[in-house]
Amino acid sequence: MAYEFHYRRMVQFVDTDMAGIIHFTNYFRYMEEVEIAFYDSIGLPGPFRRGGDAVRFPRVAASCDFIKPVTCGDWLDCRLLVRRIGSKSIAYEHVFRHEGGIVARGKITVVCAERGGGGIRSVPIPAAVRERIEEAPAGES
Amino acid sequence: MAYEFHYRRMVQFVDTDMAGIIHFTNYFRYMEEVEIAFYDSIGLPGPFRRGGDAVRFPRVAASCDFIKPVTCGDWLDCRLLVRRIGSKSIAYEHVFRHEGGIVARGKITVVCAERGGGGIRSVPIPAAVRERIEEAPAGES
Amino acid sequence: MAYEFHYRRMVQFVDTDMAGIIHFTNYFRYMEEVEIAFYDSIGLPGPFRRGGDAVRFPRVAASCDFIKPVTCGDWLDCRLLVRRIGSKSIAYEHVFRHEGGIVARGKITVVCAERGGGGIRSVPIPAAVRERIEEAPAGES
Amino acid sequence: MAYEFHYRRMVQFVDTDMAGIIHFTNYFRYMEEVEIAFYDSIGLPGPFRRGGDAVRFPRVAASCDFIKPVTCGDWLDCRLLVRRIGSKSIAYEHVFRHEGGIVARGKITVVCAERGGGGIRSVPIPAAVRERIEEAPAGES
Repeated sequence: MAYEFHYRRMVQFVDTDMAGIIHFTNYFRYMEEVEIAFYDSIGLPGPFRRGGDAVRFPRVAASCDFIKPVTCGDWLDCRLLVRRIGSKSIAYEHVFRHEGGIVARGKITVVCAERGGGGIRSVPIPAAVRERIEEAPAGES
Repeated sequence: MAYEFHYRRMVQFVDTDMAGIIHFTNYFRYMEEVEIAFYDSIGLPGPFRRGGDAVRFPRVAASCDFIKPVTCGDWLDCRLLVRRIGSKSIAYEHVFRHEGGIVARGKITVVCAERGGGGIRSVPIPAAVRERIEEAPAGES
Repeated sequence: MAYEFHYRRMVQFVDTDMAGIIHFTNYFRYMEEVEIAFYDSIGLPGPFRRGGDAVRFPRVAASCDFIKPVTCGDWLDCRLLVRRIGSKSIAYEHVFRHEGGIVARGKITVVCAERGGGGIRSVPIPAAVRERIEEAPAGES
Repeated sequence: MAYEFHYRRMVQFVDTDMAGIIHFTNYFRYMEEVEIAFYDSIGLPGPFRRGGDAVRFPRVAASCDFIKPVTCGDWLDCRLLVRRIGSKSIAYEHVFRHEGGIVARGKITVVCAERGGGGIRSVPIPAAVRERIEEAPAGES
């Protein structure tokens, strides 16, 4: 039962913009990257992978506060926390640190979904997922 | 005095992912694109442009709800609303529609900043900006 | 029968990097965008669109020379030329101009492909495509 | 004196497109990422980093052949080879393998440049760079 995950990521040159710092959209790319690595770490059948009939976890909401700028070559210590597990959705919090200080803090909410009826519909989170993750204790931040 | 702006944008092939729909991060790219076009539309000296000493508007917060999927070739009707003008910050709301229905709704908060003292510091919004934008009436949505 | 196409595109802020100019990868994004608009312009059933069984045109080669830097807010005059039509492949040339001067020049080669046998295989270009495009005269550049 | 570098990289979900495979533009992002890691590996003062007065290596040409598709979760074995060192330019070759087979092969040519006279101008490659890299033997591929 995991409720957190740590990951390191270097800010790339392509991730910067002409203001000389990371372009804000990249934090959303990083959050997805961390989430995929988190699934890998707990042995879950990669919901983003091939195997067409697997459930997926499309995002329904994403937000981020940009606290301090970082730039190319800076390493980010990324920490994912499972904040809430609903019947069909999961909310993650992501904290990004550089040299100890928090530089960004984001949230992602995903729903469990499968294809069906010509579209996508939300479905209960499968037991295989539910039994490997849990909500972070209230004190964790 | 402008408080809204309309813009049309086609979802590109590169904007999709293997789930067959737009990748969520692109809405954040689009919001910036709309904001730049908004500045252009009101004759503001492009704060994102060259002219090194111009003030800039780095993002301090961004969020988006993803309501309905769209895909490559779909046209988005983008609407920007100025939600709040503070002394040093501006909050925008972005509504994305496809064929009449809302597909995503986001918020971006920017602060007015300039370089100085070896870093970036927030400064009051210049009169040239302030006199051309205003907050949207409460009823607008 | 079309062998060329013109398109205008503004370099976006997100397209720049910390060197203050367009990041080179964006020319490849633009080339795809121009190609899609070209198909639209000649009434072709968008090969990049939904309709799962349509043929597609995956890229097999892409190249670009970066001649002069451009930056956010600069408008590019993009020109696509159909350079060669083979039995299963098409080669495009893309010329990007800013204020009259060439800033980049690229080439893209695509093959006509369809799904089948658990993978993707190249197939002859359909008549519907072939009858609407032709190779640019040798003198065009 | 180094003439090659190895790097591993997982294809991310955001790197795929609705065809279910990696979007071709990402190979160009990866090539830059590998090049930056290569500089790091030989202790070079990151030419892409802050330190405003350092020389930079803007790209003047980039090309790639896309040989076999890969998708999200696939690991790429990336190999950089220094193909040619001129007085002011360096040409790299990049070979991407997945499970032993070559999936893409690219080339990047960079020039050594510094700011000056209101623009960017090419300059001789500094000794600090030149003394740490060398051309790959002809037989290497």
